[in-house]
Amino acid sequence: MLRDHIEKILPLTDEEFSFVQTFFTTRKYKKHQYLIQEGDEVKNCYLVISGLLKLVYNDDNDKDHIVSFAMEDWWESDYYAFYTQSQATMSLTCIEDTEVYCFSFENYKKLCAALPKMERFFLQKSTFGFLAAQRRILSLLTSNAKERYEQLLKQHPSLLQRVPKSLLAKYLGVSRETLSRLV
Amino acid sequence: MLRDHIEKILPLTDEEFSFVQTFFTTRKYKKHQYLIQEGDEVKNCYLVISGLLKLVYNDDNDKDHIVSFAMEDWWESDYYAFYTQSQATMSLTCIEDTEVYCFSFENYKKLCAALPKMERFFLQKSTFGFLAAQRRILSLLTSNAKERYEQLLKQHPSLLQRVPKSLLAKYLGVSRETLSRLV
Repeated sequence: MLRDHIEKILPLTDEEFSFVQTFFTTRKYKKHQYLIQEGDEVKNCYLVISGLLKLVYNDDNDKDHIVSFAMEDWWESDYYAFYTQSQATMSLTCIEDTEVYCFSFENYKKLCAALPKMERFFLQKSTFGFLAAQRRILSLLTSNAKERYEQLLKQHPSLLQRVPKSLLAKYLGVSRETLSRLV
Repeated sequence: MLRDHIEKILPLTDEEFSFVQTFFTTRKYKKHQYLIQEGDEVKNCYLVISGLLKLVYNDDNDKDHIVSFAMEDWWESDYYAFYTQSQATMSLTCIEDTEVYCFSFENYKKLCAALPKMERFFLQKSTFGFLAAQRRILSLLTSNAKERYEQLLKQHPSLLQRVPKSLLAKYLGVSRETLSRLV
């Protein structure tokens, strides 16, 4: 899975892939388990092999907001904490039993130094992440909850089938009751 | 300015910088002038040398939303259209007389192929862009207009002094009247 995932962007020789692989470890988590808890030092980002994650921000009024979901083939972390090697301000937990590749910040730097062509892979991932984030900003600025629901349904129909409505409401920024009226 | 800007992230030899420089051109625009108009083919992204830009999305109800501002040392474009080489869905215009470096998508690809270490520079820029976008998403999800104004004031005090209140309202997603009550 890792090789396919990388080679969608960057072809690797067998030797290169064997080398790249040594920078990744796999780990299994159960439903409801935390990969990152608010306040943790964030050592890893994660590539989902199977399962489903939610990245949650708990605000000053103790209200949960879902920043993003991550399913198979998606990367996730508290990226600000990951890149700045600071404490997590968000939590990352399992909506389903989940298996991930773990990739540490230290390994990120080591791999880029040892095999600079991997920077092209991360550049493309980062660019697409930025474009998706900008699309979400536009959606929050210009659309109401019903329109945001419809956009999500269009972009990721399979995701919507797996996400409980209570969590979907926290992603769309509406109450569970409002969501019920919309869908 | 270009050399300082790049070398904040990536040291270059004199030869390397001379080479990099050939991929950039400069251009001056007057206040109110368009760098990108909705519907245009987006050939360039821009690095602001002096001046101030706004990136605007005009929604289905003909309402303007300001996606971002860009001042000295900031990059801007309709990035989705730039990276996918598709038509602009946003417009980029001058709030002040502005001078920019123009960097075409063609040159972006050529420069990365010819001098792969530049991918490290773009990777870091892209990563920071993603983190800023994610911060804005969180701010839109969790904060009201008054809090968003205060966050912006804290992050970019010099920007706020240069942006007319009518445009600031379109960035914060409130009416001009609501903004007047807040600030």
